[in-house]
Amino acid sequence: MAHRVARRPRTLADLGERGLLRSIARYLDPPSRALLVAAPKDDAAVWRGDPFVVATTDTMVEEIDFRLDWPGFDFAMLGRRLISINLSDLAAMGAEPRYALVSLTLRGTLAVADVRRLYEGIAHQARRFSCAIAGGDVSGTLGLLTLTATLVGRIDSARSVLRRDGARPGWLLAVTGALGGAAAGLRLLESGRRPATARERGWVSAQLDPTPRVIAGRVLVDAGIRVGGDISDGLYREVERLLEGTRLGATIAVDRLPLAPGLQRKEWALAVKDSEDFELLCAAPAARIAAARRVLERLELPLTVVGEIDARPGIRLRNGSRMERLEGAGYEHFR
Amino acid sequence: MAHRVARRPRTLADLGERGLLRSIARYLDPPSRALLVAAPKDDAAVWRGDPFVVATTDTMVEEIDFRLDWPGFDFAMLGRRLISINLSDLAAMGAEPRYALVSLTLRGTLAVADVRRLYEGIAHQARRFSCAIAGGDVSGTLGLLTLTATLVGRIDSARSVLRRDGARPGWLLAVTGALGGAAAGLRLLESGRRPATARERGWVSAQLDPTPRVIAGRVLVDAGIRVGGDISDGLYREVERLLEGTRLGATIAVDRLPLAPGLQRKEWALAVKDSEDFELLCAAPAARIAAARRVLERLELPLTVVGEIDARPGIRLRNGSRMERLEGAGYEHFR
Repeated sequence: MAHRVARRPRTLADLGERGLLRSIARYLDPPSRALLVAAPKDDAAVWRGDPFVVATTDTMVEEIDFRLDWPGFDFAMLGRRLISINLSDLAAMGAEPRYALVSLTLRGTLAVADVRRLYEGIAHQARRFSCAIAGGDVSGTLGLLTLTATLVGRIDSARSVLRRDGARPGWLLAVTGALGGAAAGLRLLESGRRPATARERGWVSAQLDPTPRVIAGRVLVDAGIRVGGDISDGLYREVERLLEGTRLGATIAVDRLPLAPGLQRKEWALAVKDSEDFELLCAAPAARIAAARRVLERLELPLTVVGEIDARPGIRLRNGSRMERLEGAGYEHFR
Repeated sequence: MAHRVARRPRTLADLGERGLLRSIARYLDPPSRALLVAAPKDDAAVWRGDPFVVATTDTMVEEIDFRLDWPGFDFAMLGRRLISINLSDLAAMGAEPRYALVSLTLRGTLAVADVRRLYEGIAHQARRFSCAIAGGDVSGTLGLLTLTATLVGRIDSARSVLRRDGARPGWLLAVTGALGGAAAGLRLLESGRRPATARERGWVSAQLDPTPRVIAGRVLVDAGIRVGGDISDGLYREVERLLEGTRLGATIAVDRLPLAPGLQRKEWALAVKDSEDFELLCAAPAARIAAARRVLERLELPLTVVGEIDARPGIRLRNGSRMERLEGAGYEHFR
């Protein structure tokens, strides 16, 4: 008698949409006291609301934001990053994450195991930040993977929020964490070389698997800070945004930037221009920055003063006694 | 002296992401008493919350859900459809729309005028249903257009909602509007022929520019109906979902289906299987169906009884005195 070899589903085309939905059901949060109905069982999710809601959506596109052939590419990490980049937007408002909706556009040729890893990463990162996966959508595509998440969070009051508006001359500019690692990591990934040292692995990890500064955002608000944002489009670009519509300017102290370990001082532009570091920038009077820094120190997260708002329009880059110039700061889509 | 011809930006690549964001700012809702902060000015939107929240997300992918070379294709219609398919999910829960977040993945080669039309359509349909566009995201892609919207709505209480769970034997099944038009419209579009008659234009419009049954969803809930969903994946598939996890069955009266004008009775499968009609199905005792029908009649929307829940597992299709069979009901992605 011949042995029968069990044929197992290998790709999404084998599994089909219904099979996929069954297989990922374990990653969706079960209904709870707060989350009353989780999609896709019903047409939409239902939850008990909060008095003040913060909501954001962000997308990652294959070949633009990530490549499957990057050395060491991992679908779980991609899933974590999808949640992290959206959590970073909530963090940039000082909000507490509550619910996520995830919309994935996938090719039928993808391996089922890879798609499971993707959902594992999504669920892992959402849970780590107390965010319930309330629903979502899967679609087939003949093209590039396109992954969108929408995150909904809460704040305590309409005023306890970080906004881009409202900076004043004399206020300090401060950033969380270390800068330039994500850009250095991207440079390494695009070179096709595997990271060889702990520092190089740190850069790649800053690019692929950033830690959203959710707790830091709330610490800044608790310290009375009300102006800030994340610097995922670059520190320079975010300072520009804080100044938009005002007659104010700013000086960034290039020699004081907290560069990621292993970066040389002359590589400062990685920290200012390209970024994709999911760190927070804030502007506030010195005493409030100091108060926030004391709390964040206990959480082992540095908050470093990197410049100052002033009444002279424009952004100046001071490097010791010299002034620096910067070309083409901030990533722009379509170009 | 030579005439100078003004060169105007033609594609997204000419305009750039920042240019696009400036150019679409007019379509975003300004902050109001309810919508406190609208992204993308800040990292996320902020609004005053509701006690019970309903949220959904849905995506349209080029070449899967639409084709730019369909006869009479129009970007404004595509934008309206993106909002409509999500509104239909809120309608299917009986929820009132409140906020939309829109995430668009676009090619740099797209004409700026087309992208403006797309946003016009999105904004038009959102406003028509009292839904504020609170924020969103634009990304570049080298591949297919992928359009995602997340819609957030409200219900009055945790119980005033349409769910898929809870149908009982003896309850009637009823659908809003007319069926099969969207499938007939798709068949026509895929043939490459322009619609020639008013009926054909009606089918194409049911496919490209459906009217989400937002008001009908609330009427059903107000009439005490608690079980329902939308039939965008097909009437048969939606009846399957209402029965999932129960020992109940249903009979669909094929000869009683409210077919779209111009469809012949023998084309009933278009109304049962393929669908993409964004109509609502509900299950309830006869008296509640009648109560809802009386209200909907005044709004000129028919609510037609198309079958009944019973205690015999499986779905039967009764066509007068005959029973019909159906192969492969309901669209599945990846296959």
